[in-house]
Amino acid sequence: MTSYRFIVSVMPREGILDPQGRAVETSLPHLGVTSVHGVRVGRRVELSVEATDADEARGVVDRLAGELFANPLIEAWTVEAVGPAA
Amino acid sequence: MTSYRFIVSVMPREGILDPQGRAVETSLPHLGVTSVHGVRVGRRVELSVEATDADEARGVVDRLAGELFANPLIEAWTVEAVGPAA
Repeated sequence: MTSYRFIVSVMPREGILDPQGRAVETSLPHLGVTSVHGVRVGRRVELSVEATDADEARGVVDRLAGELFANPLIEAWTVEAVGPAA
Repeated sequence: MTSYRFIVSVMPREGILDPQGRAVETSLPHLGVTSVHGVRVGRRVELSVEATDADEARGVVDRLAGELFANPLIEAWTVEAVGPAA
């Protein structure tokens, strides 16, 4: 068994209201910042999976992403392999 | 002025309690998953900055990362430029 490390990025889908992103944009003028727009706030999950090969490990991550990390109705996600865990 | 797009990844510092990561790990056995460990949960912020050059744009992002997106006492962050915004 090898330990594989992954990063799952979960973001609000295009067109879906992003209250955290809006909160950031609302606070920017109070910091004197007027040059920032298009703020989107999501989650980043890092995890390690014990598996016999990389494909098996990715299968576990893909399942968790859709069932646990993200709400597929309103969020989209990407899975990035960062190689065998240290 | 050009619009530059960035991704800021904010994660709990090593050794700092990560309650969201622990919550995920606690829920895994209920999903029949026993091969996952080392779960860390942070935030991913995407934003665009209007600036005359990339260095100026990154300066704005670096400042916001430390003042608004992250709590430097307990969180570490990285800034990734993803090129001029669409």
